[in-house]
Amino acid sequence: MNEILFLHPDRFLGQTDEIISVARRIFAEVGSLPIISPHGHTEPRWFAHNEVFHNPTDLLIVPDHYIFRMLYSQGVSLEELRIPIAGHSSNVSPSEAWQTFAEHYYLFQGTPTRIWLDHVFYEVFGLKEVLCAETAQDYYLQISNRLKNDLYRPRAILDRFKIEFLATTDGPLDSLEFHEQIMQTDFAGRIVPTFRPDDITDPDTPEFLGNICRLAEITGEETTTWNGYLAALRDRRNFFKSRGAVATDHGHPTARTSDLSIVECRTLFEKCLSGNADHQEKEYFRGQMLTEMAAMSLDDGLVMQLHAGVSRNHNRTLFNQFGRDKGADIPTSIDYVESLKPMLNRFGNESSLSVILFTLDESTYSRELAPLAGHYPCLKVGPAWWFHDSPEGMMRYRQQVSETAGFYNTVGFNDDTRALFSIPARHDLARRIDCQFLAGWVVQRRFTEHQAIRLAKDLAYGLAKDAYRVGY
Amino acid sequence: MNEILFLHPDRFLGQTDEIISVARRIFAEVGSLPIISPHGHTEPRWFAHNEVFHNPTDLLIVPDHYIFRMLYSQGVSLEELRIPIAGHSSNVSPSEAWQTFAEHYYLFQGTPTRIWLDHVFYEVFGLKEVLCAETAQDYYLQISNRLKNDLYRPRAILDRFKIEFLATTDGPLDSLEFHEQIMQTDFAGRIVPTFRPDDITDPDTPEFLGNICRLAEITGEETTTWNGYLAALRDRRNFFKSRGAVATDHGHPTARTSDLSIVECRTLFEKCLSGNADHQEKEYFRGQMLTEMAAMSLDDGLVMQLHAGVSRNHNRTLFNQFGRDKGADIPTSIDYVESLKPMLNRFGNESSLSVILFTLDESTYSRELAPLAGHYPCLKVGPAWWFHDSPEGMMRYRQQVSETAGFYNTVGFNDDTRALFSIPARHDLARRIDCQFLAGWVVQRRFTEHQAIRLAKDLAYGLAKDAYRVGY
Amino acid sequence: MNEILFLHPDRFLGQTDEIISVARRIFAEVGSLPIISPHGHTEPRWFAHNEVFHNPTDLLIVPDHYIFRMLYSQGVSLEELRIPIAGHSSNVSPSEAWQTFAEHYYLFQGTPTRIWLDHVFYEVFGLKEVLCAETAQDYYLQISNRLKNDLYRPRAILDRFKIEFLATTDGPLDSLEFHEQIMQTDFAGRIVPTFRPDDITDPDTPEFLGNICRLAEITGEETTTWNGYLAALRDRRNFFKSRGAVATDHGHPTARTSDLSIVECRTLFEKCLSGNADHQEKEYFRGQMLTEMAAMSLDDGLVMQLHAGVSRNHNRTLFNQFGRDKGADIPTSIDYVESLKPMLNRFGNESSLSVILFTLDESTYSRELAPLAGHYPCLKVGPAWWFHDSPEGMMRYRQQVSETAGFYNTVGFNDDTRALFSIPARHDLARRIDCQFLAGWVVQRRFTEHQAIRLAKDLAYGLAKDAYRVGY
Repeated sequence: MNEILFLHPDRFLGQTDEIISVARRIFAEVGSLPIISPHGHTEPRWFAHNEVFHNPTDLLIVPDHYIFRMLYSQGVSLEELRIPIAGHSSNVSPSEAWQTFAEHYYLFQGTPTRIWLDHVFYEVFGLKEVLCAETAQDYYLQISNRLKNDLYRPRAILDRFKIEFLATTDGPLDSLEFHEQIMQTDFAGRIVPTFRPDDITDPDTPEFLGNICRLAEITGEETTTWNGYLAALRDRRNFFKSRGAVATDHGHPTARTSDLSIVECRTLFEKCLSGNADHQEKEYFRGQMLTEMAAMSLDDGLVMQLHAGVSRNHNRTLFNQFGRDKGADIPTSIDYVESLKPMLNRFGNESSLSVILFTLDESTYSRELAPLAGHYPCLKVGPAWWFHDSPEGMMRYRQQVSETAGFYNTVGFNDDTRALFSIPARHDLARRIDCQFLAGWVVQRRFTEHQAIRLAKDLAYGLAKDAYRVGY
Repeated sequence: MNEILFLHPDRFLGQTDEIISVARRIFAEVGSLPIISPHGHTEPRWFAHNEVFHNPTDLLIVPDHYIFRMLYSQGVSLEELRIPIAGHSSNVSPSEAWQTFAEHYYLFQGTPTRIWLDHVFYEVFGLKEVLCAETAQDYYLQISNRLKNDLYRPRAILDRFKIEFLATTDGPLDSLEFHEQIMQTDFAGRIVPTFRPDDITDPDTPEFLGNICRLAEITGEETTTWNGYLAALRDRRNFFKSRGAVATDHGHPTARTSDLSIVECRTLFEKCLSGNADHQEKEYFRGQMLTEMAAMSLDDGLVMQLHAGVSRNHNRTLFNQFGRDKGADIPTSIDYVESLKPMLNRFGNESSLSVILFTLDESTYSRELAPLAGHYPCLKVGPAWWFHDSPEGMMRYRQQVSETAGFYNTVGFNDDTRALFSIPARHDLARRIDCQFLAGWVVQRRFTEHQAIRLAKDLAYGLAKDAYRVGY
Repeated sequence: MNEILFLHPDRFLGQTDEIISVARRIFAEVGSLPIISPHGHTEPRWFAHNEVFHNPTDLLIVPDHYIFRMLYSQGVSLEELRIPIAGHSSNVSPSEAWQTFAEHYYLFQGTPTRIWLDHVFYEVFGLKEVLCAETAQDYYLQISNRLKNDLYRPRAILDRFKIEFLATTDGPLDSLEFHEQIMQTDFAGRIVPTFRPDDITDPDTPEFLGNICRLAEITGEETTTWNGYLAALRDRRNFFKSRGAVATDHGHPTARTSDLSIVECRTLFEKCLSGNADHQEKEYFRGQMLTEMAAMSLDDGLVMQLHAGVSRNHNRTLFNQFGRDKGADIPTSIDYVESLKPMLNRFGNESSLSVILFTLDESTYSRELAPLAGHYPCLKVGPAWWFHDSPEGMMRYRQQVSETAGFYNTVGFNDDTRALFSIPARHDLARRIDCQFLAGWVVQRRFTEHQAIRLAKDLAYGLAKDAYRVGY
């Protein structure tokens, strides 16, 4: 007899009857609001072509580094999970890989991945037993069958999930062809790109010089001069904006910003192009580019997101074999206070600029991010990110950010995922945790229930729409 | 119909019936104990002259950087709030500024500022509707009217609030004339100064050399020699002590201490006077001065407070326009373990020395401060400070400090405010959170209720009196 | 009338009726499981000789730096507590020291030390009143009398406490004679040594060169050559293994690892032997030795523990007078992400290697340790350590580690104590906190109660046995 899978309606609403009963009433007002997803990693191709997904393994495991990092940590090899080695597709069949996954599913107990997957299995695929070795093949079959149904094609899924707005994340040299195709459909303005220029602003990118040359071809600018380079960046931002983009995104090892003179910028840029820049100079260059991006945002109105503080591809062997995004990115201690100063000295007081800061170093919530966002007109604090997008993590975020930054210097929730089918699971969980948090404050007589409901709606929907200027 | 303003008697006592009912009984024993306020920023002039306050804006908004930093972060200019630019008073009328404040009052939801203000509005001024655009002018009028009443003069307020002891914070060159006037009244020994020598011990102070010269005039010492300078400091400490001071206070960017030879001290002092000291040398000098202050405290018995780890005036533009204390001070990551070593090597084992450490970096609570205070006889941990003087912040403080330091290496509560009218609000909140915390431990069977009550009294009253040697 | 001492059966099971009632049922399943104690500091001599303990002071106070650091922080001298100065035994009688301790027992309110001691007093010695000045001599007498009874001899205590496995921590030059004696008894395989080689791998050890020479004598290897030195280390590891050891342990100031060429290793080793290595070189050497130890663990299967991030003997005066382990060790901020990289680049992907990481910097739980252990096959996160082995501390550990690392990248509980009589108190408390934690998740509908019970058993017993390869 296998374990029953069941999503309790009161799940994640509290640890006491008092809180659960208040949270249940708040959640009733926000649980089914439409989804705003302003930052994520789904594929625009899916929505452009609206093709069916093939099998549960390639849909749910292979692209999800949350899943295979956990299995890997317990000795399961990536090959067994059908992860391609150096671009060569795996010999392991999807159903074999699914079986391996299922046999280790108990490892996810307590992780948000488990919560999201159970939600997907139960709500999206209608499965009623817990995944395990015994149920693995039944799962595989049932999900495979459902995926053939038109209701599980990408666009139908968007409708079913009530996703009102979805941003993808795209390289600066991307043609945005899929987004262009989407613009010809009913989904125009609902699925938009995000300008993520790291490949042409970070000199540590493997193909940096090549990318800069490619940038010249695309824009017609002389990108090996500082001015031409900036002009090309402006051009690409405009192009992205014309395809619906509302934001840029920057993934940097630190939050370092610089504010150099034009002469210094030119020299530094040349050195970076020459490949002779040292670690420190590359840091300065990336920092300068954040400041340049802020300057351009002030002009074109694109919201700026900064995702900083990760040691990417920490596992060298794994990186050499399997490439990036394989679950080996590790957060690092980070400073925002000194690092952001050069940029803030120039643009910190601009109310029309909006810079959203993300962190994986939770010690910065109360120490740095909340005080910064609670003062500077241009700054806001992004939601609990990545490893911290979990029940306890989101609770800590609210507890440590809210009192200093207030709620209105935060920006709602980001699902930040490439796992399309888990988007409602993630928003559902985030809304429940917010309701639990607010209910706790109601029970403490810090809010009235009425105030809590108003806030909950903003946290679930309104703030994201405002912060990312959706539909402006 | 406006929202009702109501302070629930059980507010902040817990999130469950079990805890609330225990906390209510503990709070009944401590809620109305007299207030010991050993560290704060009220003006001695108020109490010396006992003049009426003029209007709600100048009383409650203009001096309170907690308030206008939040409004500023959301695009309200400081001018609109009647904050003087470069010393020039604002053209905005008090009632206009009040209206602007009221219209943005919703931004404070979830912040301790809101809790304190609602307490002041309800308890001190008897207002029964929530502040908002509609109620703004009624608020303005009612508060203005009350302020004309003698019961709202500073000394009457002290009595009404049951403030048994109140320390101000004063520059080292201050004549303490107001304190001297107070000494001629019934309030002698109840309102005392605190010696905050940063202006003459921190070479980064704009007028450092001028201050040292001024110090010579006041004390008659040759303050440009190391020995004369130390003698002058001793002289000023004695003067402060003669006016009732029980403590010194030191606001440093880091917790760095030094223990240099006399020759090194002389050289360093000369370099600082010459204006040629570099960043590092100034750090060493400030560090040396902490050690000197500890040495003098050992002689004269003044308790030493260290408030370290803030990047002051982080917003350059704002600082140039409006000056210091405008809500642009941002906490930084800080180390105490290595930094305090030189001073502790000299005086760490002195039981008669008392050094109270404050932090804005909550990661140091359990890692550094509690272990340090749980070992060194001279060290104690100050209460949750500034940004962390909030319900969640104070709860984290108790959770992270108590188990390693015990309660008797902490010093009770500091309101640390220039907002006189909010002092009872702050102590009330701190006491409620402590009661909630202790009740949680009672419910967990960690304490008996009897033990919790005894502790609660110490946390609310006894520890502050002992730690600051009030009335010794 | 003295206060009653009573251990409530529901203590530490929760703060609400809902949680307590679930936790009570979970605890019923795990509370009396046998104890696995894979890391601690008891004396093997006790078990080899099975002698009686003499008096409560020498048993419970003198060896326990948790106790006297707290008393010392409040002005009690170590002499008064019968702590030997520079090896000379104290003039203070055991009963006088006990009286002093009892008079200050209130200082421990809120500390885990108090919880453990009350447990020992109540459960082990049957005392029914709280320790205080009045009850001190009665305590002293009653405990002294009990200790004369054979039931309180070390081996009987092990049986009574249901300690199934107990590892001591031993210097690398230790003859393990007591362990050898134990091997001739019924306790063979139940009490085992742990190889802690710091004295011969850390060039900052006072007698470093002497130790290396001693190592040569013991092993017959030429330990002043790099190869001979490594061979000698291998030899000692094998010797420890032959006496039952399952693990090594490494107490380093940082988590720095190195991966140098053999030529560099030789040069560095020579410099360390010469006494001329600077701070940085010693760091590199210690780091290289961690990598070497990992290499050897891969061969011989010993589990590797890393306890890093403490500023040892922070109080210079105290150290000079009383020596090490006197409660003056202070945690420091620490980095694992960059520090472990050299070792992980070599061995991170080895599933058969097991490296258990401990921290005193709680900010690394969610930022570094959980993500590292949630990816690398060779890494696991050790339990809440030392200052954080407390109710709130263990709760934070679970909250901050579980969601990213999962439960199966953790290793159960370590009592880590030299206080033999407190071992069940510590496991009891850890189990209760885990039950409270899991019950909270059950009430939130994150787990079923059935799942929670299965996990609780693993956390209390199974994980420790697996992680330390007990009985393999």
